[in-house]
Amino acid sequence: MAVYTDIDDAALDGLLAEYDLGPPLVFKGIAEGVENSNFLLETPKGRYILTVFEKRAKPADLPFFMGMMAHLAEKGFPAPLPVPAKDGQPLRTLQGKPAVIITFLQGMSPRRPDIDQCRHLGAGLARFHRALDDFRMRRPNDLSIASWPKLWEGRAAEADALSHGLASQVSGDLEFLKANWPKTLPGGAIHADMFPDNTFFLDGKLSGVIDFYFACTDFLAYDIAVCLNAWAFERRGEYNLTKGRALIAGYESVRRLEPRERSALPVLSRGAAMRFFLTRLVDLASTPKDALVKPHNPLDYAERLGFHRQAKSPEDYGA
Amino acid sequence: MAVYTDIDDAALDGLLAEYDLGPPLVFKGIAEGVENSNFLLETPKGRYILTVFEKRAKPADLPFFMGMMAHLAEKGFPAPLPVPAKDGQPLRTLQGKPAVIITFLQGMSPRRPDIDQCRHLGAGLARFHRALDDFRMRRPNDLSIASWPKLWEGRAAEADALSHGLASQVSGDLEFLKANWPKTLPGGAIHADMFPDNTFFLDGKLSGVIDFYFACTDFLAYDIAVCLNAWAFERRGEYNLTKGRALIAGYESVRRLEPRERSALPVLSRGAAMRFFLTRLVDLASTPKDALVKPHNPLDYAERLGFHRQAKSPEDYGA
Repeated sequence: MAVYTDIDDAALDGLLAEYDLGPPLVFKGIAEGVENSNFLLETPKGRYILTVFEKRAKPADLPFFMGMMAHLAEKGFPAPLPVPAKDGQPLRTLQGKPAVIITFLQGMSPRRPDIDQCRHLGAGLARFHRALDDFRMRRPNDLSIASWPKLWEGRAAEADALSHGLASQVSGDLEFLKANWPKTLPGGAIHADMFPDNTFFLDGKLSGVIDFYFACTDFLAYDIAVCLNAWAFERRGEYNLTKGRALIAGYESVRRLEPRERSALPVLSRGAAMRFFLTRLVDLASTPKDALVKPHNPLDYAERLGFHRQAKSPEDYGA
Repeated sequence: MAVYTDIDDAALDGLLAEYDLGPPLVFKGIAEGVENSNFLLETPKGRYILTVFEKRAKPADLPFFMGMMAHLAEKGFPAPLPVPAKDGQPLRTLQGKPAVIITFLQGMSPRRPDIDQCRHLGAGLARFHRALDDFRMRRPNDLSIASWPKLWEGRAAEADALSHGLASQVSGDLEFLKANWPKTLPGGAIHADMFPDNTFFLDGKLSGVIDFYFACTDFLAYDIAVCLNAWAFERRGEYNLTKGRALIAGYESVRRLEPRERSALPVLSRGAAMRFFLTRLVDLASTPKDALVKPHNPLDYAERLGFHRQAKSPEDYGA
């Protein structure tokens, strides 16, 4: 949650002149997303979010994200719609950075998801996959298994400082994942980061999914594995089987898993935990100790890895 | 601009249960104010700002701020209204901290105020003073002249590090201010921090004033001096006489200055610049160098002090 870029009046006026949205009535930086700067923008036409992409976003990836959001919104999936400017293009440049205005979605992000929310999330994830069936753009998952050894390189001491003996466990996990990662599974466009704070609920139902900036092309079941990690764990790496079962059942109420996808859930879940453990470990090392925005704790995901290491079968996840 | 406190679901639900506002539809941290945490809150009843007071706010002062906002809103001045809970009280406790829900005001904060905005701001400040004529609560200005020697104590080296020779100039200013500070002037409730980012404009007119958390009882003309410093300077301590003149003329279109208030403008303006220079100097020293939220630069106010040191008369300010 961060606002990195300060937008001056002239820049905002210049940006809005490229649209048919009218003058700004409200403009406030909001604490949403950790990678980009986000602003609440209101005009006589409605409410919007202005996102300014900071240095971690690769400009070449942005058309994929824009295309995915537009495709979802078109299919009636509750994703923000990138608003086209007068020239028909949603991607703009603001103070030298890429920027986009997207529609505002109502709803509350669950802080501690309950069983019903897990079921709705699972069903929503399957609807998300289905809506993207005919989405033709592709973007490789640059945070999948091929990237992990490089993220891990030279970080054994940092891991052991977090928890004694963690480094050798992580090395073992990486070997296991390399030996057991599925070669082929049904694939397509995935969100890859559908954490509770990237979803909104209203009246108990999923009312919005945001933050598509890790979206990519990968195994659909990997997206379920990310969600199991993000939605079905309690503190200290305790897996809540009831939540996991609800999430998977919700998913299967819309799209049945193939047997090979079901079988792959344990290794995919272990891999998803590894991905978030490693990126958090890297972020922790690169964030000053006294920074106002605290990095996520990698230990949360080290503890999940501990569960995955013991799990033997899809049944252990509620599948 | 900061969100320091993270609010969990249970805490928010518990808070809203004390009100008749209905369930939350939107809840987002916003980058507004530097002293407290602020959240955009939407319910079926409307849009609000939830403010959670962080450690710098003194609980004993809060009823003064609440009373002032309520008084202003009642008089039709565009200030947020603290929303009373079911028990009639607006002040609550949230996760152990004082908190208040206030109404949401539309409008844009000027980043670089123009002449018209300065005139409207001046008139708005006078209407603000007038609306508070019969406000009976009192709070001493704990950042006025009596506090400055203590803020300055031990900081000469820090000042000289910012600009060679600044420390002796500041010491001279403090002596001058002590010898020349007015003993009596028309007084009352003042905002004391009506900077552009604490105001909103819509259609060129002042549509809102926020952030009452430095408000206090002091000379009314000191409030004008704060605004001249905040609204009428360009970069590098250049006073824009046209803006100053517009601000003062706007003020006098609603409330005429007495001759002794006019005469005091130079010393009050020098004092107001000193107040912001000193608190920024203190904040700079206490903010880690790599913090995400950059402290305001004290030099901006050192440069304004340079102007005030040369100014000889109210005419130099456009009065």
